[in-house]
Amino acid sequence: MMNNITDVQGFKCWGAHIGIKSKRRDLAIIYSDVPANVAAVFTRNVVVAEPVRISREHVKGGVAQAIVVNAGNANACTGEQGRQGALAMVSTAAEELGIPKEHVIVASTGVIGRKFPTEKVVQGIRTNVKKLSDQKIAGSLAANAILTTDTFAKEGFVNFDIDGREICMAGIAKGSGMIHPNMGTMLAFIVCDISIDQSLLDSAFREAIDVSFNMITVDGDTSTNDMAVIMCNGLAGNKGITSRRSKAYAIFREHLTQLCMHLAKLIVSDGEGVTKFVEYRVTHAPSEQAARQIVRTISDSSLVKTALFGRDPNWGRIVAAAGRAGVDFDPDLVDLYIGTDKMVQLLKKGRPTSQDLGQVKKIMRASELKIMLSLNQGDAEATGWGPDLSLEYVRFNSQYTT
Amino acid sequence: MMNNITDVQGFKCWGAHIGIKSKRRDLAIIYSDVPANVAAVFTRNVVVAEPVRISREHVKGGVAQAIVVNAGNANACTGEQGRQGALAMVSTAAEELGIPKEHVIVASTGVIGRKFPTEKVVQGIRTNVKKLSDQKIAGSLAANAILTTDTFAKEGFVNFDIDGREICMAGIAKGSGMIHPNMGTMLAFIVCDISIDQSLLDSAFREAIDVSFNMITVDGDTSTNDMAVIMCNGLAGNKGITSRRSKAYAIFREHLTQLCMHLAKLIVSDGEGVTKFVEYRVTHAPSEQAARQIVRTISDSSLVKTALFGRDPNWGRIVAAAGRAGVDFDPDLVDLYIGTDKMVQLLKKGRPTSQDLGQVKKIMRASELKIMLSLNQGDAEATGWGPDLSLEYVRFNSQYTT
Repeated sequence: MMNNITDVQGFKCWGAHIGIKSKRRDLAIIYSDVPANVAAVFTRNVVVAEPVRISREHVKGGVAQAIVVNAGNANACTGEQGRQGALAMVSTAAEELGIPKEHVIVASTGVIGRKFPTEKVVQGIRTNVKKLSDQKIAGSLAANAILTTDTFAKEGFVNFDIDGREICMAGIAKGSGMIHPNMGTMLAFIVCDISIDQSLLDSAFREAIDVSFNMITVDGDTSTNDMAVIMCNGLAGNKGITSRRSKAYAIFREHLTQLCMHLAKLIVSDGEGVTKFVEYRVTHAPSEQAARQIVRTISDSSLVKTALFGRDPNWGRIVAAAGRAGVDFDPDLVDLYIGTDKMVQLLKKGRPTSQDLGQVKKIMRASELKIMLSLNQGDAEATGWGPDLSLEYVRFNSQYTT
Repeated sequence: MMNNITDVQGFKCWGAHIGIKSKRRDLAIIYSDVPANVAAVFTRNVVVAEPVRISREHVKGGVAQAIVVNAGNANACTGEQGRQGALAMVSTAAEELGIPKEHVIVASTGVIGRKFPTEKVVQGIRTNVKKLSDQKIAGSLAANAILTTDTFAKEGFVNFDIDGREICMAGIAKGSGMIHPNMGTMLAFIVCDISIDQSLLDSAFREAIDVSFNMITVDGDTSTNDMAVIMCNGLAGNKGITSRRSKAYAIFREHLTQLCMHLAKLIVSDGEGVTKFVEYRVTHAPSEQAARQIVRTISDSSLVKTALFGRDPNWGRIVAAAGRAGVDFDPDLVDLYIGTDKMVQLLKKGRPTSQDLGQVKKIMRASELKIMLSLNQGDAEATGWGPDLSLEYVRFNSQYTT
């Protein structure tokens, strides 16, 4: 069994079924034995769920000790009733755990606009706080309890050395957009036993998210409930990281980025509608921002995604999507490659190569594909990941709430 | 038979099959007996087709007398060969018509990156210039000759009085995005016999496009070949329009807007994948720009579009899409309605009404639906149109070039 949250020093967790969903687990609690530095990134949607409003405030304090998550009800567009429900979630957890309310982070995921089941959640927290455990099974239960329509739990673990101390970091996530609309909030919770200044934790987390969760396609941008949180409790005993220029900071950021990318890719892979997992790389771009913008526009294009589903080497769609990304580049310089481990060149300096497209169609049968667009006008690059757009996606998403 | 381009004074046209496509017509020519003021809007994609580069230059002169369009080959990503082909298109038409090259506008639509069939086009222009006609049938032939995968020709006609003179205006268009990728360039060509200053023509056309062609969903933004052109030859004999504050200008702009909206809606309606035509209206917004932005984001959302296909009154998706439009608004103030001529209210001040959703599902069986979101925080509004996202869309778009 792979390592998980419970293998990070001082962290306990649990996942339970409290009756919001008919059968599957729907309440997760993650707890640190000591107050932890916390950083978080929230949805930029102006329509935000009640728990997002509260957690945003709590994270400003920089310290947290517990994360409480319910699945099955998004607690968004629920008004005063929902606000009171989220507040009750916080105060119940604080009371049961004996910690300040401001140290409790709350999150919800599920259908928007349904009355929040406050009673069930309050009772559920009371009952399950007692079950918090550092046994491996508890990590799996927590990972499962934050899911909605996801088909598998998404977990990750990395460890590394700093100051001769072993640092452990683990995370869980749930799927977003594409396959899991509305209910498909993207949630990610990461815990680590490293000692690091809160401001450095915040910057490392934002940088990691920029190249991981922010580089996977969703149906649009961010849902009403999106949230990624990291808690670091310092129990590994390393000398605290206090400088952005330290080697320790670089090592931490690198492993955090790895973990976030791992979870992000799992999110893309999951779901009824996905037949292909596609990695998009844009190289030799004028800036990293430009490269990212192009990756996002290509990977979010319905025309590119349907062509990938149909194994259609329709490079015109890829180039046309790149062209509308809002980045100024000379199309007469670009090279385009597609493939798996072996890539074939479709465009050279903006013109089609003599590559046999029948051959390319065969390559495109692979369930994991790579697309690389070299702009040949700069040194920056970016990578992103996305699914294809299949018949199953439409079937699934056309029948959801009712 | 309805009026068309040939009913506008001084305009002739033709549409022919010259062998770029296997069977359907693929060359259209529109000609004015006298030089006409011209205005145009082109794709903002940085990857642009060769005819776009040339026409953009020619339009700067403000005067044109002919529009030549081929279908079946986009002449994009075709390099020097394509550039020479587009130049040959211009010079052949200029020579045959006896007009300056700069007065010829050229456009192409079709597959990207295939060698441009210069010989066929040059020969086709020579042969068909002789057939230019003001008989009604010629208008229909031209409307048909600019299509690619469109299932019907898109034509419109309006007339109105200025200075006691009858002004006639007609247009043809072809479909965009959604159903007609790559080949699915949006083209629109409008002719009018009004006398109007070129700068006023330009501003009226841009304003009309902002609320019509720019308010229909496409798969993304603009293709490599998008182009909308208007020519006004002044033969109606009205006193020339020279002031933006004149009543004549307002009348002209209003009818031009009507015609553009008509053509834009036809574009949305067309195609194998569309089962519903949806009108999106955002009202009481802080600014028109904000309202438009929200309309575009909602109507372009895959989740909203699949829900409409599935007749799922999933208002959470609509609100969530509005929330990520980049417009700051208070979600606790919004009202949301859905319906046909009769609308039912789903949200009141951000909260679900007691409206029976089973009833709403029945309403959503209609093939034309309206969605209205009132932000209740301003006076501005905007309207847009889009299709649903159906199984047929994915089927169609996953098998295209090969």
